[in-house]
Amino acid sequence: MKINLERKDDNYLFELTNSRGHKVILDNTSQENPQGVSPMESLLMAMAGCSSIDMVSILKKQRQEITHFAAEVEGDRVQVNDAKPFRNIHVVFQLEGEIDPKKALRAAELSFEKYCSVSMTLDPKIKITWEVVVNGVKAA
Amino acid sequence: MKINLERKDDNYLFELTNSRGHKVILDNTSQENPQGVSPMESLLMAMAGCSSIDMVSILKKQRQEITHFAAEVEGDRVQVNDAKPFRNIHVVFQLEGEIDPKKALRAAELSFEKYCSVSMTLDPKIKITWEVVVNGVKAA
Repeated sequence: MKINLERKDDNYLFELTNSRGHKVILDNTSQENPQGVSPMESLLMAMAGCSSIDMVSILKKQRQEITHFAAEVEGDRVQVNDAKPFRNIHVVFQLEGEIDPKKALRAAELSFEKYCSVSMTLDPKIKITWEVVVNGVKAA
Repeated sequence: MKINLERKDDNYLFELTNSRGHKVILDNTSQENPQGVSPMESLLMAMAGCSSIDMVSILKKQRQEITHFAAEVEGDRVQVNDAKPFRNIHVVFQLEGEIDPKKALRAAELSFEKYCSVSMTLDPKIKITWEVVVNGVKAA
């Protein structure tokens, strides 16, 4: 898998392109008006997308009818020497539809414990937690 | 740091939004025509962006004149149980301008060994390698 990067200004604005030509703008300027996402945001997006794909895929196979699917991902960073990596990531999934809450909760577990290649690429020291809300009620 | 995700179709098309409203489209459909990047591509983009920001930042402080900056990042995935995480990531930086090649090489080392928060969030098992090309000549 290959990604190309090109710097687009005299600061920290970069255009990233995948092999099919899809582009993402990364901008890490500390000025007022960044024009894109930061690298650490891109990493959190990868994580959110990966686990959401797994959940939708698993629930589709179980013939659950998802009418709405959203997620909020929060990453906490800590200073480790000169870097500031994530140490805790929390994901809240919000699903609507004819969905068995236990199946949805199990799908999230399967993603984070088995299937999600992004999670499996992260440092095992990072604590990943999640909750699943189905039709407004937290699944348990 | 917070990211919001919303599913946009009946398959695997997701819109991701950061806290300032910048959007990235992730699409993991296996069909012919995905409309965005995949989660694993988003992770590689994070990595490319993070190390490029460090390199530009370090070389700016050393008053090196960068007229062009690009990078190519390649990630090799391996099957580990049910997931397919990265195990090797190789980055080639291409710089042009009045730049001391030794300074550029040292900047890349500093990024991957000290400063890049994305690298420091990845599993230490992943082997990250790099090369730096300045005005068409590989720095050594």
